[in-house]
Amino acid sequence: MFTPEEAPRVLSEEQLEAVHEQSMVVLEDIGLDVLWEPARAIFADAGNSVDGVRVRFDREWIMDMVGKVPSTFTVQARNPERSVSIGGGSRIMMPVGGSPFASDLDRGRRRGSLEDHDSLVRLGHSADAIRCLQSATVEAVELPVATRHMDMDYSVIRNSDKPYTTYGASGVKVRDGIALAEIWAGGRRAIEETPAILVIINPNSPLVWDERMADALMAAAEANQPVVLTPFLLAGGTSPVSLAGALSIQVAEALSGAALAQAVRPGVPCMYGTFFTPLDMRTGSPAFGLPEGVLATLAGAQLARFYGMPYRGGGALASGNCVDAQAASEATTSLWATYLSASDLVLHAAGWLEGGLTASFEKFALDVELLAQFERTAMGIGFSDEELARDEIALMGPGGMYLESAHTMAHFKEWVYMSALFTTPDYNTWESTGSETLDRRANALWKEMLESWEDPGIDPAVDEALKDYIDMRKSEDPGDAEAG
Amino acid sequence: MFTPEEAPRVLSEEQLEAVHEQSMVVLEDIGLDVLWEPARAIFADAGNSVDGVRVRFDREWIMDMVGKVPSTFTVQARNPERSVSIGGGSRIMMPVGGSPFASDLDRGRRRGSLEDHDSLVRLGHSADAIRCLQSATVEAVELPVATRHMDMDYSVIRNSDKPYTTYGASGVKVRDGIALAEIWAGGRRAIEETPAILVIINPNSPLVWDERMADALMAAAEANQPVVLTPFLLAGGTSPVSLAGALSIQVAEALSGAALAQAVRPGVPCMYGTFFTPLDMRTGSPAFGLPEGVLATLAGAQLARFYGMPYRGGGALASGNCVDAQAASEATTSLWATYLSASDLVLHAAGWLEGGLTASFEKFALDVELLAQFERTAMGIGFSDEELARDEIALMGPGGMYLESAHTMAHFKEWVYMSALFTTPDYNTWESTGSETLDRRANALWKEMLESWEDPGIDPAVDEALKDYIDMRKSEDPGDAEAG
Repeated sequence: MFTPEEAPRVLSEEQLEAVHEQSMVVLEDIGLDVLWEPARAIFADAGNSVDGVRVRFDREWIMDMVGKVPSTFTVQARNPERSVSIGGGSRIMMPVGGSPFASDLDRGRRRGSLEDHDSLVRLGHSADAIRCLQSATVEAVELPVATRHMDMDYSVIRNSDKPYTTYGASGVKVRDGIALAEIWAGGRRAIEETPAILVIINPNSPLVWDERMADALMAAAEANQPVVLTPFLLAGGTSPVSLAGALSIQVAEALSGAALAQAVRPGVPCMYGTFFTPLDMRTGSPAFGLPEGVLATLAGAQLARFYGMPYRGGGALASGNCVDAQAASEATTSLWATYLSASDLVLHAAGWLEGGLTASFEKFALDVELLAQFERTAMGIGFSDEELARDEIALMGPGGMYLESAHTMAHFKEWVYMSALFTTPDYNTWESTGSETLDRRANALWKEMLESWEDPGIDPAVDEALKDYIDMRKSEDPGDAEAG
Repeated sequence: MFTPEEAPRVLSEEQLEAVHEQSMVVLEDIGLDVLWEPARAIFADAGNSVDGVRVRFDREWIMDMVGKVPSTFTVQARNPERSVSIGGGSRIMMPVGGSPFASDLDRGRRRGSLEDHDSLVRLGHSADAIRCLQSATVEAVELPVATRHMDMDYSVIRNSDKPYTTYGASGVKVRDGIALAEIWAGGRRAIEETPAILVIINPNSPLVWDERMADALMAAAEANQPVVLTPFLLAGGTSPVSLAGALSIQVAEALSGAALAQAVRPGVPCMYGTFFTPLDMRTGSPAFGLPEGVLATLAGAQLARFYGMPYRGGGALASGNCVDAQAASEATTSLWATYLSASDLVLHAAGWLEGGLTASFEKFALDVELLAQFERTAMGIGFSDEELARDEIALMGPGGMYLESAHTMAHFKEWVYMSALFTTPDYNTWESTGSETLDRRANALWKEMLESWEDPGIDPAVDEALKDYIDMRKSEDPGDAEAG
């Protein structure tokens, strides 16, 4: 289970063709507004039609560029043993990113801080299920907007030696992220040979590439750092209220971004990303973990593979405001869609709460547990002779009791999944010890995980160079270009 | 999605053959203990080896009998419009059954009663997602053990006109269930032509058919009522601690039961059922909704189809003791396995809590919501011209805002799934109105559902005949054969 070959096909061949054909019409006839002049110049040079900021594309050129996207690529980690290969159904899991708030049961919900950021990075570093981290896993809102992206990149680099996404969000910030990666990875050539950061690129849906995102994309592509193209589609907000319509916008945005990246640097890794959710029209808020999100995650995977691009999709997405039955069910369903889609890279796979507004420590512990469950399911059913257990069945015979048999005693620890969070006390024991709900156990668990964090260490010279770069940049006046 | 053809194959062809071959060896060499003499006589007459209570089977006879099982069948309801066809991926959902306790947030956890039974039947009758009911959806423990099966069958018949499983559990009780069904359905011939009750048969795992269950099976088969064969396997308790080993016991039990039923009455509907869960060795309790349960549900579906039998598997199974994040995640995962397996008949799809010990009213409301979500997902992505929305995308163009467009306003109610239970208030609103968790909303919801119950009515003559039968049976001394 959970391989690209076995992923459910929610789009028939005809429907896949219908989405493709309509997206080509969108690219050719409607076009996209490209607000960044250097990007328009590249599109114009390649023979696409440019009229003011509106670019209408040549579909053959688009598909020619998309054909240059590699199907798999490697991102190096500070610790080479933690480097990851992305593609082919790699399901590289990452924690939540971009939340302005942090929360836990002890301190409640509050604005994110660098302290929270450090803690969440350490949790991600400690969790085996998390193989890649995110800068801005929670926003350190107490720090100056113009420079805090570097503080958060540094927080990731210093507290973990796993690969990571840089803060991104503008050309200037991406270039800072690249500069920091060059320092720990051994220079520009080293990161151009093997990418050292992932760069998340969200076009301004519907159908706009603004100055910042286009500049950020081009900065990443120039340095050969992977571009994770993720149209941010809210059905009935930034896209039509129908999923079929939204998919054609997703394709037009993702492919135009991939084409721009390939035009800048042929062969730069690009990913096709899905972030689609309907708006709950009762509140105007996005609703995660519901049927449309499931279908979108699976449809996006089909489209990514149709275009030969590695896929970013899914997550432990949830709208719930606390770690209750709603948030848990939403996250579980989101993860089922994620695993069934055989997503290659999964942002927001741990800690996401309240539609992403909050990075929750208890939700982080729950999600890491869920990821372990899915990985166990992915292992399938063992069929060794010992597991077929013919001799054991003969030994026990009809009416036998396996509870304390030698076979059971020898194997249950290895073969039976047991969870620290999902427990089975009998009702009276449970009630007499306080009727504990899962969120309380999750509270204890993340503290244990944080306590178990092992400092990966850092070369003092590298550490000093990183700090020097950040100090140097902070001493400049970055102007107003970076606000927000 | 969610069709037999698209069900994940967790067993390779070789593994399927390995389970089959081992189960044949179990049937031939180890055999089963059959404690009911009439069943042994049937097996002996057919040429199987009988040595004391141990029966060793001829695999060709077993497979010959299994070949007589129909792939689909109909169960008639008191209201013919509610009759169901079972097989081919029919996913007929049923509420929890067999729980000794009931619970809700107002009255807490208590021993089940006929009042609770009536209420849960009414909830099941009101819920569109529930297409079949269960007698003993909670056990009416205040009533005499020897006769309460009839009170609970009557509770289902009177409060709903959907099809149902009879209480079952012994030959005497099954015969009472048949007698009651004959009364409302118009006599023996009517129910023999179209079955009117489902009969759940759990062999005494491992590898025993005791007097009661074998008699119950034969009573159902004689009357042509469907036999739902469900080995009750607890890994490391009633089966080996390995799933592969457990599956071969499941096959041996299910096929020997199907063979017995077909020998009694060729062509009687039989179902292949999975109920498999590991024991949590820390507590000795079964652990539901975890990886082994997922794999067992999917593997069972493959085996059922390998043998050409309709499949019973899955449910909203959970070990959690309250409607918290644990129970919700477990139930959601159990339902994903259920839907992916394209199960034909699903017991315990609503209300199951605490490993089945409790029928929870709030869990019922949550599960019915989840079933609605899955059914929506099963509908897939709409591809009408209006949903492709080419004109709408052209109208909005780059940077358009779809929130209040005519297209969005015309379609969002139909196209966007909105849930009464899964809500998206902004955090401040949510907090200022009491930080309500899902279980509180579920409490309000089941009360609304119960309030909305519409009495299906009953022919007074039928009602009187049912009551007369029950009174007559109560006036007899049923002896001690029916205790427990």
